[in-house]
Amino acid sequence: MRICVINPNTATAMTEVIAVAARSVARPDAEIVAVTSPMGPASIESHYDEALAVPGLLRAIDDHPDHDGYLIACFGDPGLDAAREIAVAPVLGIAEAAMHVAAPLGRGFSIVTTLDRTIGRAGDLVEHYGFARQCRGIHACDIPVLELETNPATADILEKACREALHADGSDAIVLGCAGMADLAHRISDAIGAPVIDGVAAGVGMLSSMAAMGLRTGTASGEFASPPTKIYSGPLEGFGRT
Amino acid sequence: MRICVINPNTATAMTEVIAVAARSVARPDAEIVAVTSPMGPASIESHYDEALAVPGLLRAIDDHPDHDGYLIACFGDPGLDAAREIAVAPVLGIAEAAMHVAAPLGRGFSIVTTLDRTIGRAGDLVEHYGFARQCRGIHACDIPVLELETNPATADILEKACREALHADGSDAIVLGCAGMADLAHRISDAIGAPVIDGVAAGVGMLSSMAAMGLRTGTASGEFASPPTKIYSGPLEGFGRT
Amino acid sequence: MRICVINPNTATAMTEVIAVAARSVARPDAEIVAVTSPMGPASIESHYDEALAVPGLLRAIDDHPDHDGYLIACFGDPGLDAAREIAVAPVLGIAEAAMHVAAPLGRGFSIVTTLDRTIGRAGDLVEHYGFARQCRGIHACDIPVLELETNPATADILEKACREALHADGSDAIVLGCAGMADLAHRISDAIGAPVIDGVAAGVGMLSSMAAMGLRTGTASGEFASPPTKIYSGPLEGFGRT
Amino acid sequence: MRICVINPNTATAMTEVIAVAARSVARPDAEIVAVTSPMGPASIESHYDEALAVPGLLRAIDDHPDHDGYLIACFGDPGLDAAREIAVAPVLGIAEAAMHVAAPLGRGFSIVTTLDRTIGRAGDLVEHYGFARQCRGIHACDIPVLELETNPATADILEKACREALHADGSDAIVLGCAGMADLAHRISDAIGAPVIDGVAAGVGMLSSMAAMGLRTGTASGEFASPPTKIYSGPLEGFGRT
Amino acid sequence: MRICVINPNTATAMTEVIAVAARSVARPDAEIVAVTSPMGPASIESHYDEALAVPGLLRAIDDHPDHDGYLIACFGDPGLDAAREIAVAPVLGIAEAAMHVAAPLGRGFSIVTTLDRTIGRAGDLVEHYGFARQCRGIHACDIPVLELETNPATADILEKACREALHADGSDAIVLGCAGMADLAHRISDAIGAPVIDGVAAGVGMLSSMAAMGLRTGTASGEFASPPTKIYSGPLEGFGRT
Amino acid sequence: MRICVINPNTATAMTEVIAVAARSVARPDAEIVAVTSPMGPASIESHYDEALAVPGLLRAIDDHPDHDGYLIACFGDPGLDAAREIAVAPVLGIAEAAMHVAAPLGRGFSIVTTLDRTIGRAGDLVEHYGFARQCRGIHACDIPVLELETNPATADILEKACREALHADGSDAIVLGCAGMADLAHRISDAIGAPVIDGVAAGVGMLSSMAAMGLRTGTASGEFASPPTKIYSGPLEGFGRT
Repeated sequence: MRICVINPNTATAMTEVIAVAARSVARPDAEIVAVTSPMGPASIESHYDEALAVPGLLRAIDDHPDHDGYLIACFGDPGLDAAREIAVAPVLGIAEAAMHVAAPLGRGFSIVTTLDRTIGRAGDLVEHYGFARQCRGIHACDIPVLELETNPATADILEKACREALHADGSDAIVLGCAGMADLAHRISDAIGAPVIDGVAAGVGMLSSMAAMGLRTGTASGEFASPPTKIYSGPLEGFGRT
Repeated sequence: MRICVINPNTATAMTEVIAVAARSVARPDAEIVAVTSPMGPASIESHYDEALAVPGLLRAIDDHPDHDGYLIACFGDPGLDAAREIAVAPVLGIAEAAMHVAAPLGRGFSIVTTLDRTIGRAGDLVEHYGFARQCRGIHACDIPVLELETNPATADILEKACREALHADGSDAIVLGCAGMADLAHRISDAIGAPVIDGVAAGVGMLSSMAAMGLRTGTASGEFASPPTKIYSGPLEGFGRT
Repeated sequence: MRICVINPNTATAMTEVIAVAARSVARPDAEIVAVTSPMGPASIESHYDEALAVPGLLRAIDDHPDHDGYLIACFGDPGLDAAREIAVAPVLGIAEAAMHVAAPLGRGFSIVTTLDRTIGRAGDLVEHYGFARQCRGIHACDIPVLELETNPATADILEKACREALHADGSDAIVLGCAGMADLAHRISDAIGAPVIDGVAAGVGMLSSMAAMGLRTGTASGEFASPPTKIYSGPLEGFGRT
Repeated sequence: MRICVINPNTATAMTEVIAVAARSVARPDAEIVAVTSPMGPASIESHYDEALAVPGLLRAIDDHPDHDGYLIACFGDPGLDAAREIAVAPVLGIAEAAMHVAAPLGRGFSIVTTLDRTIGRAGDLVEHYGFARQCRGIHACDIPVLELETNPATADILEKACREALHADGSDAIVLGCAGMADLAHRISDAIGAPVIDGVAAGVGMLSSMAAMGLRTGTASGEFASPPTKIYSGPLEGFGRT
Repeated sequence: MRICVINPNTATAMTEVIAVAARSVARPDAEIVAVTSPMGPASIESHYDEALAVPGLLRAIDDHPDHDGYLIACFGDPGLDAAREIAVAPVLGIAEAAMHVAAPLGRGFSIVTTLDRTIGRAGDLVEHYGFARQCRGIHACDIPVLELETNPATADILEKACREALHADGSDAIVLGCAGMADLAHRISDAIGAPVIDGVAAGVGMLSSMAAMGLRTGTASGEFASPPTKIYSGPLEGFGRT
Repeated sequence: MRICVINPNTATAMTEVIAVAARSVARPDAEIVAVTSPMGPASIESHYDEALAVPGLLRAIDDHPDHDGYLIACFGDPGLDAAREIAVAPVLGIAEAAMHVAAPLGRGFSIVTTLDRTIGRAGDLVEHYGFARQCRGIHACDIPVLELETNPATADILEKACREALHADGSDAIVLGCAGMADLAHRISDAIGAPVIDGVAAGVGMLSSMAAMGLRTGTASGEFASPPTKIYSGPLEGFGRT
């Protein structure tokens, strides 16, 4: 089976981190195809960035047909519903996947994300996916996305934020709130003595399971059927379905 | 005061319908500036269309600074949070505005939208805005968006769908689920004997009130502050904030 | 259009504050008719006061027919459903109106009210109107209602309470929890750098919009139809519908 | 112990029905004091009636101090929070009591009330008390309150409505939605083979238990402390606390 | 009437405490039959203990047929749904009963339980019974169940925990989270000046009321009908219904 | 990795069906160890059966230490929290696993279970896991558990029930509500053209992912730490932790 992991920003260094995390947990019979968005923001740190990352994400899916699953590797899960309309295989966001894996690992989990301003979106997703009872808090570690890999103090700062969140919230597990943190899950878990869930690994696992089960996004209600054909204009002209 | 009403698809005929509806309820001291999206889909009938309507919407806001309110005239409220980050004045979606106006008009309301496949998104918005108790049903009239103005049977079909929704749900009011229905609110209300809320008119009213009160989107939590500067690439290169 | 703003307590000085706030935001074509309750408590600071303010409120509505909207200017929204049965135009409470206006101005809002003992009722209204997610906290400033206008420290105390609520709750906006605070909204907003919503102004705006749209309370489900005729006895004998 | 059961309308025939139902379940050591409201509507069939029944209810409580519990025998639970402020013993509404007793008797219950227009209020109470999951439906039998005792077909109509509700909702129990139905609970239960809960009996039982446990309404948060002293004017002048 | 109160652990000393609490509030015409579980854990302090207390509880019910109500005297309400299938009379858990009695005594209540690790289960029950709004906090006093009676400091520690919970949560009432605390309710209530609810007394009161009303668990939906006959094997062989 | 799949009833034929389903989706590097409960009911069709299946389930876990995940193969998820306290690896129930996999496959799913009387428990789990919005209906096919394998019409009856549920609920996916249906998922999916989720396969997939990520149940809050040592007596004497 082939799982397509898409970094919806244009930072190839982050795609590398994501690819490594994805491959570290993949089934022996699964191939990980890691893709960087062909257009849009260099990182996603606002609703504005997130909205404008979606065209690149959708283009990436169209450019990589015939995979058995698609993972959107940004914790805002941008473009998820749209992606489900055009992909022939299941699509997950890493926030969604991480919460589905975290929920059964204890009574409650805490999310630790990058910047304060992303807390609102994470909270929306918690509500949307149904984890309002299980998610006991959302916290920021105040490191910009692209500094996660370059700031030598990232691991220490993040570990501290995770430990504090665990205790403040009375949680049993931590969900990492950015794809760029994927390489730190094990280290932090060992340090704080609690499960730490990286959404990239969680998503690869869930998509692989779905593929093994032969599952695809359901289209019975019509909502996730292919989008109607439509004329598009301007810089997005090429996006019109035909 | 000046209220900017943005049609996020590229159909100028629909912009006209929207502008007329907006002006019909505007305060005497309010100017309505109706804008058609400069790029993207000709109509919005899927999650895919909606996601790809957002760049044009955001561009339209940037192209029309210095207004006292911005209304997103598509019932999916595309790009709402992103728009709040870049607009200097309050931003509303027409689904949001319509529900805020409908809720106090009775015990419950029903939504009547265009195509079946848009029911899921409408339901998400109902939950997100907090109207799960008040919204008693979401129904489709099975008319594609761009046929609303051209199909001679539109008014009859929509009136029938509204009447049936009112009774099936035990509702006191109807919310029209598409900006392209704005011109039919009064006719249907008279026919079915119940308040029928068009989100365009509702949005103009709420934004005018906010402007009169001197209100702007709050930025204290940081979530809706201006997006960070960022390099954008590809066809969206021009969207990078500087 | 004519909007009837009813102060459901008998303190005419508070009616003046309310009238000024209402007129400051009214459409040029709207007349504000400010009314003081003809009977009942001098101020509303308990469930007991609130319940006993309702007869005067209902009498005031009956005494002022033929308006285009009625606003109940007490943050407990007393008698709202009953008023909807007898008024020929839409009726709003100021708590209801303030929350509808505050919700779209950010991720969350905080309410700052007068006395501790009113927090419970405010919380009930938050739940009832559907704003449990958006309302992040309800706080008291410990000033009795009738001292709001006479205590020279009111503005400072209230400003401090609003600032603290904003930060403690991580909110983007403040809702003032008493009609007697209407004159302070702008001053506090300027001081704390966040939108501050006065329900009187919010209510006038929403009712004006409803009037411009030609909307009335829906009666399709029967709940808000005129009350059945009924014999009343004792001091309330005159309230029987005939 | 003495339990004061208050009929908040002025129909003494209904007070008799209520008194019989209350005494049929009372502890051997409990005295039931049945009281008819001294003023207000002859029956309660609208929000308007309910609001205007509250002064009489509160007066009745003040007129009967030194009891060990107070039951408000109208299914809208009018004036409940206000009554808790002035009574020295616990206060229950019959809707509240009936739901607390019905919930543990199965997976879900249905409410059968008098007129369609009372369904909205019943639904509000279901939400307010926390029984949204347990209450599976609210139905009307279309008999006006004062006809319950005089219409010879009442028992048959009500039995039919209860049986239909039980099956339509997949419920395990029925809650009767009017104090005037109290005498029919056993007959209908025998006929439909399911528990049928009359709120008068339920309320007497819960209040007796509270009295035996020595419990009173808590005032620690201040909300249910005695109302502040206040000047009242007009026909309600005598209601001011001193 | 006869109410069967079952201590689902094997500690007879705790059964005595429970029996005394039950009898202190029983109706004059009610007989309290206190039963100790014939098998299983000596105390219940984990999900494991709770699960393994259920066979003994069910056996105790089968061993005591022909009672008018059954109370499960452990705050985790173990085996409640199973018990309802086999008992001919209503069954309550003490957590369930305590919450139903506490809810009407104020705006909110706090639970004070034994060990930290039981907080999760208490929270589940709060959600399950519908008291998420009313329950404002769950706290542990860190005393193991079997030390409640032997530790001379129990009363002081528990009183302190209750007082702190009341203030921290802004609650009006306290629910005691263990049957072994039943003898301390009055002392703590007097000390902290707030109602303190013991579930054993609450349960006896509710079951007595149900018995007086002639109520039994409803079986209309089929869920609580007698379990199907079934072959059981191993140490549980004797549990098979025939 | 080794995944232990436990059939908590004593029917070895059902264990075989479960084992085949589990192995059909397992990673190439995963060994499936299928275990039949050593005691208790022959099938689980009531709350009573479910409660009494837990000792055997817990014994099976203790008898199979050193696995990388434990799956409870009964749709009531019996003993889940208790199992998490004693297992050194993650534990999932098949209802839990199936819902986590079904939720991302569309807007909503329907559950099709065996007997009517199991609908209540399934509904509790839906609420408990947070899928109240996603689960749109729970339906029974009226086939007893042990007849699933022997009744030649099972596949046709179940397919019909799934098709009807899909349309009645407007769902995008079906969750099979019994481990004994595991072998029919693909056939029904092909027949109705929608994803059909078997919890056994879903659980094996999720547990394998957790194992690959090195995740264990979190114990930071203390709730899922090993149970305290305790004396057990009677037929359950051997269950005491030491």
